[in-house]
Amino acid sequence: MSEGVIVTATSSISPGLTELGTAPLGVAIVGLGYWGPNLLRVLTENMEVDVRRLCDVDRARLQKYRRRAPRARVCTRFERVLSDPHVEAVIIATPVHTHYPLAAEALAAGKHVFVEKPLATSRLRADELAETAERNQRILMCGHTFVYSPPVRAVKRMLEAGTLGEIYFVSCSRVNLGLHQRDVSVIWDLGPHDFSILLYWLGELPTAVRAVGRDSIVKGIADVAFVTMSFASGIIANVELSWLAPSKLRRTVLVGSERMVIYDDGSSEPVRLFDRGVVYRDPETFGEYHLSYRSGDILSPKIDSYEPLGLQLDDFVSAVRAEKPMEFHSALARSVVRVVEAADRSLLDGGREVAVDGQDIGDQLTGRRELHVI
Amino acid sequence: MSEGVIVTATSSISPGLTELGTAPLGVAIVGLGYWGPNLLRVLTENMEVDVRRLCDVDRARLQKYRRRAPRARVCTRFERVLSDPHVEAVIIATPVHTHYPLAAEALAAGKHVFVEKPLATSRLRADELAETAERNQRILMCGHTFVYSPPVRAVKRMLEAGTLGEIYFVSCSRVNLGLHQRDVSVIWDLGPHDFSILLYWLGELPTAVRAVGRDSIVKGIADVAFVTMSFASGIIANVELSWLAPSKLRRTVLVGSERMVIYDDGSSEPVRLFDRGVVYRDPETFGEYHLSYRSGDILSPKIDSYEPLGLQLDDFVSAVRAEKPMEFHSALARSVVRVVEAADRSLLDGGREVAVDGQDIGDQLTGRRELHVI
Amino acid sequence: MSEGVIVTATSSISPGLTELGTAPLGVAIVGLGYWGPNLLRVLTENMEVDVRRLCDVDRARLQKYRRRAPRARVCTRFERVLSDPHVEAVIIATPVHTHYPLAAEALAAGKHVFVEKPLATSRLRADELAETAERNQRILMCGHTFVYSPPVRAVKRMLEAGTLGEIYFVSCSRVNLGLHQRDVSVIWDLGPHDFSILLYWLGELPTAVRAVGRDSIVKGIADVAFVTMSFASGIIANVELSWLAPSKLRRTVLVGSERMVIYDDGSSEPVRLFDRGVVYRDPETFGEYHLSYRSGDILSPKIDSYEPLGLQLDDFVSAVRAEKPMEFHSALARSVVRVVEAADRSLLDGGREVAVDGQDIGDQLTGRRELHVI
Amino acid sequence: MSEGVIVTATSSISPGLTELGTAPLGVAIVGLGYWGPNLLRVLTENMEVDVRRLCDVDRARLQKYRRRAPRARVCTRFERVLSDPHVEAVIIATPVHTHYPLAAEALAAGKHVFVEKPLATSRLRADELAETAERNQRILMCGHTFVYSPPVRAVKRMLEAGTLGEIYFVSCSRVNLGLHQRDVSVIWDLGPHDFSILLYWLGELPTAVRAVGRDSIVKGIADVAFVTMSFASGIIANVELSWLAPSKLRRTVLVGSERMVIYDDGSSEPVRLFDRGVVYRDPETFGEYHLSYRSGDILSPKIDSYEPLGLQLDDFVSAVRAEKPMEFHSALARSVVRVVEAADRSLLDGGREVAVDGQDIGDQLTGRRELHVI
Repeated sequence: MSEGVIVTATSSISPGLTELGTAPLGVAIVGLGYWGPNLLRVLTENMEVDVRRLCDVDRARLQKYRRRAPRARVCTRFERVLSDPHVEAVIIATPVHTHYPLAAEALAAGKHVFVEKPLATSRLRADELAETAERNQRILMCGHTFVYSPPVRAVKRMLEAGTLGEIYFVSCSRVNLGLHQRDVSVIWDLGPHDFSILLYWLGELPTAVRAVGRDSIVKGIADVAFVTMSFASGIIANVELSWLAPSKLRRTVLVGSERMVIYDDGSSEPVRLFDRGVVYRDPETFGEYHLSYRSGDILSPKIDSYEPLGLQLDDFVSAVRAEKPMEFHSALARSVVRVVEAADRSLLDGGREVAVDGQDIGDQLTGRRELHVI
Repeated sequence: MSEGVIVTATSSISPGLTELGTAPLGVAIVGLGYWGPNLLRVLTENMEVDVRRLCDVDRARLQKYRRRAPRARVCTRFERVLSDPHVEAVIIATPVHTHYPLAAEALAAGKHVFVEKPLATSRLRADELAETAERNQRILMCGHTFVYSPPVRAVKRMLEAGTLGEIYFVSCSRVNLGLHQRDVSVIWDLGPHDFSILLYWLGELPTAVRAVGRDSIVKGIADVAFVTMSFASGIIANVELSWLAPSKLRRTVLVGSERMVIYDDGSSEPVRLFDRGVVYRDPETFGEYHLSYRSGDILSPKIDSYEPLGLQLDDFVSAVRAEKPMEFHSALARSVVRVVEAADRSLLDGGREVAVDGQDIGDQLTGRRELHVI
Repeated sequence: MSEGVIVTATSSISPGLTELGTAPLGVAIVGLGYWGPNLLRVLTENMEVDVRRLCDVDRARLQKYRRRAPRARVCTRFERVLSDPHVEAVIIATPVHTHYPLAAEALAAGKHVFVEKPLATSRLRADELAETAERNQRILMCGHTFVYSPPVRAVKRMLEAGTLGEIYFVSCSRVNLGLHQRDVSVIWDLGPHDFSILLYWLGELPTAVRAVGRDSIVKGIADVAFVTMSFASGIIANVELSWLAPSKLRRTVLVGSERMVIYDDGSSEPVRLFDRGVVYRDPETFGEYHLSYRSGDILSPKIDSYEPLGLQLDDFVSAVRAEKPMEFHSALARSVVRVVEAADRSLLDGGREVAVDGQDIGDQLTGRRELHVI
Repeated sequence: MSEGVIVTATSSISPGLTELGTAPLGVAIVGLGYWGPNLLRVLTENMEVDVRRLCDVDRARLQKYRRRAPRARVCTRFERVLSDPHVEAVIIATPVHTHYPLAAEALAAGKHVFVEKPLATSRLRADELAETAERNQRILMCGHTFVYSPPVRAVKRMLEAGTLGEIYFVSCSRVNLGLHQRDVSVIWDLGPHDFSILLYWLGELPTAVRAVGRDSIVKGIADVAFVTMSFASGIIANVELSWLAPSKLRRTVLVGSERMVIYDDGSSEPVRLFDRGVVYRDPETFGEYHLSYRSGDILSPKIDSYEPLGLQLDDFVSAVRAEKPMEFHSALARSVVRVVEAADRSLLDGGREVAVDGQDIGDQLTGRRELHVI
């Protein structure tokens, strides 16, 4: 096959952060299972970062991945990571129930921490991590990468511009065949994706959550759940989560007073904007009320193409460099844990409404100024 | 444009009921708004039926439709229908809150009754109608036409054959832009479609229902609702109903232990059967449990093409002729009203779980022998 | 089912031509096979028209359709139509090979003529009809209804506005399972649709045509053909026509220097505009040439919804009233016959290039001022 | 993100060829542009192969890729490859016009050769390479990887089983936006994909080819072409090739007397089998002929998932080991060059029919016994 004519790509890419004169940030990656290798790949391509250590309980994995980070030392014991003076930041991609203890130890050892979602398995522990980081003046970031995803950002810009008008409700489906988790329900596994997107978009924490589900395959581990969220603004959201589905679907519909959006992750047109709505005419004028339906153009805007994880890790490195705490990210991670925890409790309690506390934290969800502007 | 070669259609059609020697059944159609004209069209094509009267409060409509039924007399007063000795059966397609009074009067006048869904606005009134019909030995049928729809029947056959294995859960969406109803919520308007299909398929009444929704446009009339149903068998079902949506969707997913089905009404392939599932291997054998995912062929079976309404009205006429009460249809109509009523109550009560009574009626949902076999 | 709130439709409809003081135009419809009943339906709804006669060789059809036109007389002999003084215009929807003789007789009898496509089975006969009509000062229109279709019009407006830039090429598929014609190849049956659309859009006649095909099922009747057209402007077009296909497809792609369009008739989004293209930078500046690919938004514009046939017949009636010959329509009908004839000849001659004569007629394809503006 | 439960994949993978006691085959990869890195990746994962040399004119590429093959030496001069005694086979992935000279030199130097498609830019040179390889008892394989693609194999199995009945015609589209080639038309660039698939499926060489196209962007380089092929069996095929298209499409439709297939490369259901057809009843029996259309189920069979390139290179290594010439592959590569050459000549000659010689070579297309059975 011959070579193509050189072409100019029009898509955006992460611009990098080449500040001359700064030594790269020494990091360790802990956990090389499903997601860790992605973090490894992105971090080895980041000029601001030096991957100094890889840590996993499985020696075979360490053998496999050490070739991709030739300067990194490998270890099976986390203490080695903590005691290594070249490691300034620890990147944690281990099973959910280990997020808290590993992050807590790393913060205690004076390291900055990037930890995969969810931040912890309870709001108390999530808050404790956030407070420890603040007290120790360490950066703590949780891997809610979807808030860096190009289509999620495109919808956010529409919401900020008022393109959709007042939002009435949101309906999400995130379903697939597999992968069952051993230790947590589908709400803990898939929920953080949609919850982080919704909280980022809407800028508020729900006041109450209900969830109904079923443990179809493994007793005690719900593999399907229907979660309903109520917000103080009046918005309601329904989130369908499942590891059992005939075909993969990651689809969210936002219905607003002016326009509607379908965000279909994985589609070749991930964001579609529908100029559709209902016009309500007041009964005073017309004797009785009158509705007219408006149906106009449909637009699939051009969506940037860059890797969200690269941009997120750039933000993490910048925050470490600037010693500037990540308030939005902290609030987001703590809020997501609150929603997951409430939903899981409702699920176990047969769908009873569970209030979500921490509305003060929710108030910080609107301050997204720290997010890397694309 | 020239004429095509004559072709042989392979699709099934309603075979008709030409029993020689019987006079056609005299019927009146009451209500010529959105749905009534369809009933008129189908009844005028039915050789077993003689449309004797059209009744509507709007004279313009009577003028418009009388041309399509040249032998029919028209009237604006329901009493004329009741007192006409040529009218043996009354077909009611009026607004929801009038179903009960009109049907009750017709039964009292000795007429057989076919009434559009839902049968009534409360289970008490639905039960009263059913009991009156039984006591008076009149046929009462409610227009749950979806149980005659070819794709719904195709899925039913798969369920009866055990093709899907044990059903774990069902997820439905029935959304569109419009048409808001004046007097009832979206649950009363769209819910009967999905509820009748689910009850027919599963053969059981849910034990409890929860619904969360919002009155986005007209205060007091919910235009979006997320309804969750729990069944004694362990099955759960989520039904999304909305008059506010960027695009029309009538889609139901059934997840079973052996296979999964997507029923997408309006698609060129309305039923798709996925040979997909999860195999659970017991921890005793393997030390810890082990899951494997199975993914095989996808089949879009050939679906019959006939008009469901034609078949349903054939059944109604046959039941009148045979003087044989329609037990399954009666149980279905009463069950659907129970589910709608419970869901609407839950909606008004902020999503609280509402128990569904009448499990004795639900037991009759499995006796579908009276349904026209296609 | 209850009645919906009255809604205001935003879609356009044919505005009608209610000029008071004019008696309706007396017409006869000849041929009530596949397409004739559509003409009957639209003409009976047209206030400017009085359907006076129905003519068909099949008495059963006459019986069936006379009920839909109560004022019309029926006949099996065409002479009756010609001698009826109340018939001012004859609408012909008979098999292809009868178009010419029936239209010629009707013009000779002093009638105006609307005849289904194609106008005739040879360019000589098509020209003869056009010349007779002109000489006798009668209106002759051919049923190329696609030039009134809303999506076809939407694309035409884009072309006139220069939205697509210079057109490079066009690729069309019109395939389906069925309906084989008895007397003509798939080129005569389906070709006039695409050819009329292309000539209308591009405003020019091709200079040469090639066609390759096969008579898969019935010997001597090609049921699949690939037709290639070359235009003086440099544009090329490929048209795939078939009665043998796994699924129905009516899809046309236009590739221009600035943007591209997909017109998919029957899709819920029949016109999609792609802001995509290639930018060529000159070798003089860059040493060697350089291409960059541009990929922007995709737009599905709101498409009007009205019945094209109604609008076309309005135009016909207006032309009769105004005694104004339909020059564009005449040129279009004669041009389409030229392209079909050339393509069929190429097909029989193994795909040899066949020149298309009549470029003077093609020049009139740009004068579309007579078309009803929507 | 936590780790998933270990799952058992049901998809097939290349089984590998671990014959103990054999030293790995020493290979050089020449050309590291668009496609070469894929060959590098697959070959470094092949236990039977030792990548000894990387060769490219661009030093930056050599620097970039040497890290992926730590044992390989790099060079910019091809002579170094030829004189390296550790290099037993040369893998060539350079621009089209260099395929012949590089392959010829490598064969002359006693190397086995795997060369990207097309084998050469003329049938004379393609034949010369094949004859040289045979004379020197060296293995020569051309990179027609699509004959190893799982969906292409699935369709081949259907054809061999007679599932489709007699094939009437084939219609292919392979279009995309980009990538224009500098030195050859779109026929030389994209044509080999479809031509190799068609020749593999049908087992015969076309007798004649016609092509019409246009050089829309760069003068002298056709970027769109419509190619029509005629086969002795009566089958016709239309192939649309373009670097200018609003959206990517790789779609082939096969229409047979019993069933039809759509092969859509890149779709989640790449092969769809339609149980559709036409039944022709003889005029002798019926007075005149009679057609009936049959429309049954649609099946998306489960398609294996493995990397075709891995399997193809396994076959190459096996052939080298066994010293067994690849007769089918040789015939395929020579046949494809014949078709491309004929199509390109027709294109330059305004679409004139060009005969395809070498029917003796075409006869070997049916002998596919050497292909790795999956």
